[in-house]
Amino acid sequence: MRNVFVYSTISSVILLIIFFCKAPLSSSETAMKKIIFLFLLLDFLNGWAESNSQKSNLRFPFDLPKGEGPWIRPSIGQIWPQPQLQQSTNNFMVLRPNDFQFQITGNTCDILEEAIHRYHDLIFFPKKGSGTAKRFLKLSKKYSSSWEQNEHFRGYLDTVALHVMQPCETYPSLDMDEHYEIKIDATDKPREGIILSQSVWGILRGLESFSQLIYASQNGIAFQINSTMVMDFPRFPHRGLLLDSSRHFLPLDVIKDNLDLMAQNKLNVFHWHITDDPSFPYESRKFPSLSQLGSFSQYSHVYSPSDVQDIIQYARMRGVRVIPEFDTPGHTQSWGPGSPGLLTRCYKKDGTADDFFGPINPVPAKNYKFLKEFFAETFEVFPDAYIHLGGDEVDFSCWASNPEINSFMKSRGWGQDFARLEQFYMQRLINVTQDVTKGDMRYLVWQEVIDNNVVLPTDTVIHVWKDGNKFHDELARVTKFGYRTVLSSPWYLNYINYGVDWDRYYLAEPLAFNGTESQKRLVIGGEACMWGEFIDAVSVTSTTWPRASAVAERLWSNANVNDARLAAPRLEEHRCRLLRRGFSVNPINGVSYCDVEW
Amino acid sequence: MRNVFVYSTISSVILLIIFFCKAPLSSSETAMKKIIFLFLLLDFLNGWAESNSQKSNLRFPFDLPKGEGPWIRPSIGQIWPQPQLQQSTNNFMVLRPNDFQFQITGNTCDILEEAIHRYHDLIFFPKKGSGTAKRFLKLSKKYSSSWEQNEHFRGYLDTVALHVMQPCETYPSLDMDEHYEIKIDATDKPREGIILSQSVWGILRGLESFSQLIYASQNGIAFQINSTMVMDFPRFPHRGLLLDSSRHFLPLDVIKDNLDLMAQNKLNVFHWHITDDPSFPYESRKFPSLSQLGSFSQYSHVYSPSDVQDIIQYARMRGVRVIPEFDTPGHTQSWGPGSPGLLTRCYKKDGTADDFFGPINPVPAKNYKFLKEFFAETFEVFPDAYIHLGGDEVDFSCWASNPEINSFMKSRGWGQDFARLEQFYMQRLINVTQDVTKGDMRYLVWQEVIDNNVVLPTDTVIHVWKDGNKFHDELARVTKFGYRTVLSSPWYLNYINYGVDWDRYYLAEPLAFNGTESQKRLVIGGEACMWGEFIDAVSVTSTTWPRASAVAERLWSNANVNDARLAAPRLEEHRCRLLRRGFSVNPINGVSYCDVEW
Repeated sequence: MRNVFVYSTISSVILLIIFFCKAPLSSSETAMKKIIFLFLLLDFLNGWAESNSQKSNLRFPFDLPKGEGPWIRPSIGQIWPQPQLQQSTNNFMVLRPNDFQFQITGNTCDILEEAIHRYHDLIFFPKKGSGTAKRFLKLSKKYSSSWEQNEHFRGYLDTVALHVMQPCETYPSLDMDEHYEIKIDATDKPREGIILSQSVWGILRGLESFSQLIYASQNGIAFQINSTMVMDFPRFPHRGLLLDSSRHFLPLDVIKDNLDLMAQNKLNVFHWHITDDPSFPYESRKFPSLSQLGSFSQYSHVYSPSDVQDIIQYARMRGVRVIPEFDTPGHTQSWGPGSPGLLTRCYKKDGTADDFFGPINPVPAKNYKFLKEFFAETFEVFPDAYIHLGGDEVDFSCWASNPEINSFMKSRGWGQDFARLEQFYMQRLINVTQDVTKGDMRYLVWQEVIDNNVVLPTDTVIHVWKDGNKFHDELARVTKFGYRTVLSSPWYLNYINYGVDWDRYYLAEPLAFNGTESQKRLVIGGEACMWGEFIDAVSVTSTTWPRASAVAERLWSNANVNDARLAAPRLEEHRCRLLRRGFSVNPINGVSYCDVEW
Repeated sequence: MRNVFVYSTISSVILLIIFFCKAPLSSSETAMKKIIFLFLLLDFLNGWAESNSQKSNLRFPFDLPKGEGPWIRPSIGQIWPQPQLQQSTNNFMVLRPNDFQFQITGNTCDILEEAIHRYHDLIFFPKKGSGTAKRFLKLSKKYSSSWEQNEHFRGYLDTVALHVMQPCETYPSLDMDEHYEIKIDATDKPREGIILSQSVWGILRGLESFSQLIYASQNGIAFQINSTMVMDFPRFPHRGLLLDSSRHFLPLDVIKDNLDLMAQNKLNVFHWHITDDPSFPYESRKFPSLSQLGSFSQYSHVYSPSDVQDIIQYARMRGVRVIPEFDTPGHTQSWGPGSPGLLTRCYKKDGTADDFFGPINPVPAKNYKFLKEFFAETFEVFPDAYIHLGGDEVDFSCWASNPEINSFMKSRGWGQDFARLEQFYMQRLINVTQDVTKGDMRYLVWQEVIDNNVVLPTDTVIHVWKDGNKFHDELARVTKFGYRTVLSSPWYLNYINYGVDWDRYYLAEPLAFNGTESQKRLVIGGEACMWGEFIDAVSVTSTTWPRASAVAERLWSNANVNDARLAAPRLEEHRCRLLRRGFSVNPINGVSYCDVEW
């Protein structure tokens, strides 16, 4: 990593020396020599700065403490991501694990029933618990006076009512309602607890917030919750995490852990980048040879149809959508072995066929027949209305080398304009999938598709991923065309850094681009991306979390919740919370400890 | 991360433009303006390069494959680190889990007995096995003809003799003998297996190599080993890993996993950086208040005396030395609460006492009395002759602010030369510890001690850690003084990078400095360092391994084993091996898979 500070300082010092040097430059030749010398010097200093900069390059969103102890003290009973509105007092109630229960007072369904059990366990018996609950039961009788004497003690919270006002929907969707309210010992409901929402999705979000409000008392023997009112809803409806199961295979348990963590951070879209060049782990019923020949191992490194359903149901129970991505026409090397003729044969310069293949061959009609059947199946398998069609990084060079494609281009009069061929491909792909799904399939595509001027259905969502923190022009451009958009550019979590880096993700503001209010309404959310080149089951979870939590708060909370210094103690608590619940999540603020370690 | 290549290219282009620009520089003022413009342009381009460089910055020690599949195909049955001498043929023998046994034919002891059981399990029943062994047992009878018909099949290897020629030593040491030989179906011992060594330590290294020679047959139903002769010994005697249990507490199981991994990579020194500023987790019998008041939590975040013995014994069984570091006089903030008066009180500019403390106060005699007793205990607790006294990064500013220290400096006539005060401290520390250990304690210190011209016992080992890959001058300097040295500069594994980075560690050559042969003999080895600021139990193992394996091969194998392209397939196999054995080790070569995933 390069030390910008050191480098700039050195540059400035040299500039000053030049300004104040007494010998005037006598000729352009001398000046030139000096310039060259300076460049060489700079290169040297630069190299030096680079080799010495790793430590000094560290940036923190907070001041490091003097003396011993952790760098950040965690908050107590704070919610992550921060609710839109919350009011708490110092008064508190106590929850007793054996007496506490949720009470369903409105509509119900399997999602709610399962959630009640899940949150009871999460609150009182986290997976890798330190025996907190057991210790509580043993000690609470002995020491109960310790809180009963407290002037702020308001009583025991033995029941929390869960009130869903509308019938449950079966699957989460882009349009789902996630508003909820929590009242714990509120002025209009003293000593009572209630979580209220129009929808079961809102109740799921409310249950998560409720579970986070609960904290251990200072002596560790009571589960306390402060008198609290929360009114909450998300800023953006599409809040996702992309996982890549092609570059490394991700076992089901690992994906499920991440679905749990998504729900516990109020993310609601699992973008499953399921296939790519290296492997094709998705088992298609109609085309089983794709995974038989295209996966790393057809016995152990594939997702069977029941595996896929398992993931979809697990996500549904947590209010998380599953949007699969079958990226074409590029990123399809692994489709080749199981689907002869699908990929473009590349040719050498001398006109002979090469051993390599390029993107999907967009010319033969039979390829669209295959794609039609393939996507018809995915439309049946995945309940979400949206599918991600990819469309990124299409390499034109192999297309350009292929005689069949060249004569096709000639016949169309397209010359060497392969962006038009890409448009031709995407348009036909969309036509055949609309055809087979009676117009019910909705699409996300990567930004290149629109950058290459492909015309798309107006309800297509453009996924902006390029240019790191300089995504603003692209958002302005895409929304000016009238497309809705999802942002990922600043949230490529696979790019790891030494030191604290969550504040970079936290401070990226999706709407900070030049555009009208109606343009900004077209930004429906964002996704953190964890590409799989350098991580697998071992570390995908710890590398993603809690760094993705920073993105989650940006996408859920109000835009003005953007002070990393204020966020740090809450994030610190949240990390320990996720760890206590049994997830392998990394330390996030440097030197630290949690009551329950991994 | 900065893209040096892009930057240099841009610089060159600009230089060329300047050279060929037709308008001559007319005055020094114009030249100056141009220089300033260039600086600004460079800064801009530089920033641009930085923001765009993460992907293009990726370097690989190998060519990425075209088409689908992993980037590197693992080798089969290769040893990591590579032995000094090995000869294998295509002939092979087959091991049957139920029939195979090790046979002790020479000296024996608890270390050997335990190792036999450990390696039997590692070979046939790895912790998180895929059921390979069970499947083998079931299928081997059915399909045994599949190898019995093979022309290269030489028979069943049911016994491997373990022959230790000298009586076992109790503890590993710097002087231990790690030479060993392996013969499997050798010309002078056809169809037999033997591991031979002067010492039990050599047998441990040989057992590890033997276990790595065994591989699953192509159909996965047989454990095969090729006819092989190995003669092996380490290049350097001190091959270490530093773990830091102060910045994050590392539970015993995590340390033990790393001790296993060290042994499985033939590293032989666990450098336990046990205390530092943030916390003091080491429970001293004589001074229990140090950990009671200086640890993150005295109940859950401390190493009790029996914990420490547990680690020492676990390491001993694997031929790994435990060298504790009690870093002083800096890095001691956590010593403060449990040892009032030990640290230097800092003073404000107005001469009033501040709330903060600095390094250990080197003036009061009672501090040396404390240190004498403290180190007398550590000398009893840790069996190794060596202890690491730290001595790095001593902050002089607090010493300089303190009136007591100032008058001491004045009385000695040292002015503001606080390096002399540091020397005074280190010298007295060494005197009192030599005193109490009857001259038997040996020391490692960080390089600053010698950089600050402290005179040390000639058998002190200087630990070089600064300047990244530019450590050569320091090694030359230290060895010129006649001190032995251990290198860590290029092996700070805590500095993480995006992409493949093991080749950087692999290619760092300790002896590539200007010096005589006798200077080079003073380099006794090196240590990979995993400082704990940003990792804890969750990811310390996966961040360390198998990146530390690259260091292990550099320190064990011949200097000419230095081609990262040749090493990559072996490292790929080694990673999958460690994963199969149940350790959370990261992928190392990008896109990949292992038969047994995490």
